Amino acid sequence: MATKVVDLRSDTVTKPTDAMRAAMAAADVDDDVRDGDPTALRFQAEMAALMGKEAALFVPSGTMANLVSVLVHCDVRGSEVILGDDSHIHLYENGGIATIGGVHPRTVRSNPDGTMDIDKIVAAIRRPEGVIYYPTTRLICLENTHVNSGGRCLSVEYTDKVGEIAKSHGLKLHIDGARIFNASVALGVPVDRLVKAADSVSVCLSKGLGAPVGSVIVGSKAFIDKAKFLRKTLGGGMRQVGVLCAAAQVAVRDTVGKLADDHRRAKALADGLNKIEQFTVDSASVFFDIIDSRISSYKLCQILEKHNVLANPRSSKSVRVVLHYHISDSDVQYALTCFEKAVEELMTGGT
Amino acid sequence: MATKVVDLRSDTVTKPTDAMRAAMAAADVDDDVRDGDPTALRFQAEMAALMGKEAALFVPSGTMANLVSVLVHCDVRGSEVILGDDSHIHLYENGGIATIGGVHPRTVRSNPDGTMDIDKIVAAIRRPEGVIYYPTTRLICLENTHVNSGGRCLSVEYTDKVGEIAKSHGLKLHIDGARIFNASVALGVPVDRLVKAADSVSVCLSKGLGAPVGSVIVGSKAFIDKAKFLRKTLGGGMRQVGVLCAAAQVAVRDTVGKLADDHRRAKALADGLNKIEQFTVDSASVFFDIIDSRISSYKLCQILEKHNVLANPRSSKSVRVVLHYHISDSDVQYALTCFEKAVEELMTGGT
Amino acid sequence: MATKVVDLRSDTVTKPTDAMRAAMAAADVDDDVRDGDPTALRFQAEMAALMGKEAALFVPSGTMANLVSVLVHCDVRGSEVILGDDSHIHLYENGGIATIGGVHPRTVRSNPDGTMDIDKIVAAIRRPEGVIYYPTTRLICLENTHVNSGGRCLSVEYTDKVGEIAKSHGLKLHIDGARIFNASVALGVPVDRLVKAADSVSVCLSKGLGAPVGSVIVGSKAFIDKAKFLRKTLGGGMRQVGVLCAAAQVAVRDTVGKLADDHRRAKALADGLNKIEQFTVDSASVFFDIIDSRISSYKLCQILEKHNVLANPRSSKSVRVVLHYHISDSDVQYALTCFEKAVEELMTGGT
Amino acid sequence: MATKVVDLRSDTVTKPTDAMRAAMAAADVDDDVRDGDPTALRFQAEMAALMGKEAALFVPSGTMANLVSVLVHCDVRGSEVILGDDSHIHLYENGGIATIGGVHPRTVRSNPDGTMDIDKIVAAIRRPEGVIYYPTTRLICLENTHVNSGGRCLSVEYTDKVGEIAKSHGLKLHIDGARIFNASVALGVPVDRLVKAADSVSVCLSKGLGAPVGSVIVGSKAFIDKAKFLRKTLGGGMRQVGVLCAAAQVAVRDTVGKLADDHRRAKALADGLNKIEQFTVDSASVFFDIIDSRISSYKLCQILEKHNVLANPRSSKSVRVVLHYHISDSDVQYALTCFEKAVEELMTGGT
Repeated sequence: MATKVVDLRSDTVTKPTDAMRAAMAAADVDDDVRDGDPTALRFQAEMAALMGKEAALFVPSGTMANLVSVLVHCDVRGSEVILGDDSHIHLYENGGIATIGGVHPRTVRSNPDGTMDIDKIVAAIRRPEGVIYYPTTRLICLENTHVNSGGRCLSVEYTDKVGEIAKSHGLKLHIDGARIFNASVALGVPVDRLVKAADSVSVCLSKGLGAPVGSVIVGSKAFIDKAKFLRKTLGGGMRQVGVLCAAAQVAVRDTVGKLADDHRRAKALADGLNKIEQFTVDSASVFFDIIDSRISSYKLCQILEKHNVLANPRSSKSVRVVLHYHISDSDVQYALTCFEKAVEELMTGGT
Repeated sequence: MATKVVDLRSDTVTKPTDAMRAAMAAADVDDDVRDGDPTALRFQAEMAALMGKEAALFVPSGTMANLVSVLVHCDVRGSEVILGDDSHIHLYENGGIATIGGVHPRTVRSNPDGTMDIDKIVAAIRRPEGVIYYPTTRLICLENTHVNSGGRCLSVEYTDKVGEIAKSHGLKLHIDGARIFNASVALGVPVDRLVKAADSVSVCLSKGLGAPVGSVIVGSKAFIDKAKFLRKTLGGGMRQVGVLCAAAQVAVRDTVGKLADDHRRAKALADGLNKIEQFTVDSASVFFDIIDSRISSYKLCQILEKHNVLANPRSSKSVRVVLHYHISDSDVQYALTCFEKAVEELMTGGT
Repeated sequence: MATKVVDLRSDTVTKPTDAMRAAMAAADVDDDVRDGDPTALRFQAEMAALMGKEAALFVPSGTMANLVSVLVHCDVRGSEVILGDDSHIHLYENGGIATIGGVHPRTVRSNPDGTMDIDKIVAAIRRPEGVIYYPTTRLICLENTHVNSGGRCLSVEYTDKVGEIAKSHGLKLHIDGARIFNASVALGVPVDRLVKAADSVSVCLSKGLGAPVGSVIVGSKAFIDKAKFLRKTLGGGMRQVGVLCAAAQVAVRDTVGKLADDHRRAKALADGLNKIEQFTVDSASVFFDIIDSRISSYKLCQILEKHNVLANPRSSKSVRVVLHYHISDSDVQYALTCFEKAVEELMTGGT
Repeated sequence: MATKVVDLRSDTVTKPTDAMRAAMAAADVDDDVRDGDPTALRFQAEMAALMGKEAALFVPSGTMANLVSVLVHCDVRGSEVILGDDSHIHLYENGGIATIGGVHPRTVRSNPDGTMDIDKIVAAIRRPEGVIYYPTTRLICLENTHVNSGGRCLSVEYTDKVGEIAKSHGLKLHIDGARIFNASVALGVPVDRLVKAADSVSVCLSKGLGAPVGSVIVGSKAFIDKAKFLRKTLGGGMRQVGVLCAAAQVAVRDTVGKLADDHRRAKALADGLNKIEQFTVDSASVFFDIIDSRISSYKLCQILEKHNVLANPRSSKSVRVVLHYHISDSDVQYALTCFEKAVEELMTGGT
């Protein structure tokens, strides 16, 4: 029997459950490009309702979800988007909005909590009227949870405030909500309320929710109509896509309710790590810091791997540990034991 | 019990077989973006071998397969691709190579058999050296089978000749081989031999092969490495993609061998249609023409639909009928009977 | 004293006259990017009036004139332009509308007289409603005179007809009118009438008109406002640009009236060439054909160059000869003598 | 007689001198797109020599100079450029590198002195090897003088250091040197030494140097060959461009030597403004701050305008004053008197 591996590297490693596999096998499907796939249509309707928007669209990845969203809002040449200089779209999506979409990213400095200062956002808004060397701002992007701050959440108040600014300046607001359900659970705010101010939201299905493939974009009907067209242009239109939507539907139905358990376990892991004197953890973050100069994150993670615990060094002094539905309470306890052992080994000069 | 519908509109309507569904449910999967999904890796290796190329990449659609291929070959700003003015890439893929990729399409006139004249291809090749107003030709695209000529096949001799021209001018050759297996069967030429001259080939898995979702690109290892990167940029990188590759693998293993049956049935259908005096059919084509001025294709197809036979009007005097693995010998006979009835109805003034 | 060279290669070789030089030296100028240059403003107003449009914009070149025009009309991602497959924009402007602007060129076959068949234009118009794999046609481009047909003119009737089609389909019509004044003179139709159906026209100032630098775009005020912004983006916004507009203003005032003389001389040259039995000339064209297999255009032009007559081989059997205001009646006679000598030399085996 | 206006808004308002006008009128010109214009060729050779680079190219504007430079260095799709988040290219050039060129700008935070921290530059460099969601860094851009810091200069040591980093990472270094001659004079470093580490430099001719139109790009011969091609694509290739180059040549010959006088006068102006107790000036900057809450920059500049002194409010508490060759010693004294009067008027409640 294969030894269980406790994989804390990311929630993208989640594998489909038996229920998802059964749903894929039994899915009622049709040519989605031609007539609409019935399972896809049902799932998209469910997601739209859940997120409180008019319509939804299934896309193959989170990258396409954000790319399509930004490009639909910025469909006129010469458009600019305001986003954080530490945001996922700016840093980890190949610069696709510019290299594929010709959209100019106007970066505003990201704060350690994932927000951008409201006054800096306002100052960055530009209209070419009378200023011939300006592009036209059309969109503001937020990211909730915000990955580069360790998964911190943006509050509903902050989101609403940015939404007001967008509206009053004739701009759109997109939320990169790859892990918006985690934010909803952590904040105790219903997800549709949390994204109420947004014109579009991307939601990842294959991270904490555990679907094998896909993301969903939600927004107005007019927005989704344009998104569907652009999805086809980019090559994201899929034929009997119901096989994927069937799994995603199970993921949303079964897993969203369990995210609170992941958060409870994350808290337990953070508390345990905090008890190790060489570490310091802010429980609002999935990163923890190594405060002893003798311990390198790379060596630490190598030792952990020998114990079948996987974690991702973020820098030589910072490690990322992410919970998801494959990680049980006992896995957390096991991982903590391994962390302790690894630290001991490193402090006593082992390896 | 639902009445069987004989759907001759396109081979994109094929639905996954039980074997494909079982394969999806049982697939061994992992995060393909991070570590490589084992099923995807196996399937891609199989496809590369089958097509006689170094490497392969699974993508969500035929549109992405061609888009990625053209863009990888034309990765430098100011590139031009030579393609037929009646080609699928030029006409039916949203103009994505230009609107997303900034690649300039230089059209050469397509012949009714799907070829472009060799001397016209040569005359269209351009290099900016000494001619400052030229873009740089980097790629020639062929399409086999060629959809707008009714699915006619390009011979291996023609393909080789274009390959020689490409090579001698320092250009690449891409084959839009959405239905390359159909061409291979029709020509009696092994598929790897048929595409030997090509630097890249796109192959659709969800048309005649019947996989629910996806296409494959094949080419050199260096080409596929770049394609993988661009797939990510476009948002075609999927996580536990093995669920789709497992179905595709079954499709290729089970269905390629059965394409000869589809071709035999297509011949039977063409022969039967030819016996109807109001029609004329070239058996090398999936289109048939209506030669009686009293019959409109639109009315014809409406009547057929009442009999649960679906076919696609292409113009008021031309209809497309495509065979695939859901269509049996008796379905062909049934469809022919319905065609006859419909013609009779239309000739006698009914509707 | 330098021997006079009779340069028939192109009308782009024209050099500024003394009057243009004096105008440049005396021009009243200001920062056009900041406040508007007074000479530029006056010249643009004059050009708008002359062409019968609301507004005009000076740009550094004909390439930028067409590029800006196409991009302004096609400012939404996913736009398509219908143009001739033998048009200047498609063939001789670096493919910039696609490589810089992301606009998809949908080519329609050009006739030998520079037109595209009306029914082919109509058939090429596309709207994505209901057809998810189509780009959106937004523009039709005509070219008058049409360079690749030897400078043939499009009639006002044809232009109006295409304008009606554009209007009835919600499209714009752009005329690449690099030599629209030549067309106006040749057709005997006032230039504003000739372009009445067009939403925008580009006019070259540095060809037959003889200005040292520049082209002008004309159209509605809204169009020119957008064009001005895009000109800045492309880097075509110039500071004390009045120095160039002053010369252009002289060119338009002094030279337009003399184009009829160029056309008369072109006729004389054509007649003379037609008398040489090895040549055949269609006087509607600036090309003439060599019908004797023993004469190569390349050798012919080499011999002519020794006699200080410059002409451009277009192919081994075709030569381009263009008149402009540096070529006098006696130059034409001199050139004809040289053509005769060169033919004699080639027929008797000389060189 | 027109009253003299002391225009301190920008050095772009400079008008051509009599010597420049005479040079334009007398320029030896030819078709630069076809054969090369002799005056342009000579001027470009002079600029290349002056800047210590192999080759040079005249372009119509500073925007095109930077656009062409960035796009040539980033000619492969998926390229990223590192630049300051307060740089001219990022803020004031329409976002053209992204909206026209598809280049992704990776912003690094600009310091108040116009530098970016060296370690932040290094941390921003990205290569997609092994990281599939990264674009590829190809270029670093510096700006000297740096406009948004009030025209502060980057030292030769800093420039060399960034050049080393670029070289060691296989990147190129471009300097936006719109006012590089001002930097050279202010630092007392020869201009070719100052830009030695750069692969390309853009130099504006129509700012402090006073030419009516144009900028120059310098770099290696291979770089300039590509730049020339891209200039044509963008529509910046001009015909008898020698008329502009003749003026620019005079500007460089006559005006560079006088920049030291502008700097001396700028110092005098700064000293004078510093004596006004409501103002504070850092003499390294062309901005001065208003430290009295009762004085608004907008009202201040309105009053100045009545006295024929023009200055540009930058914010309600900051004003930009730029010297150039139209401003004499007595103009500076006159302007200072007017500033004093205006402050007095504002402090005593007038307007």
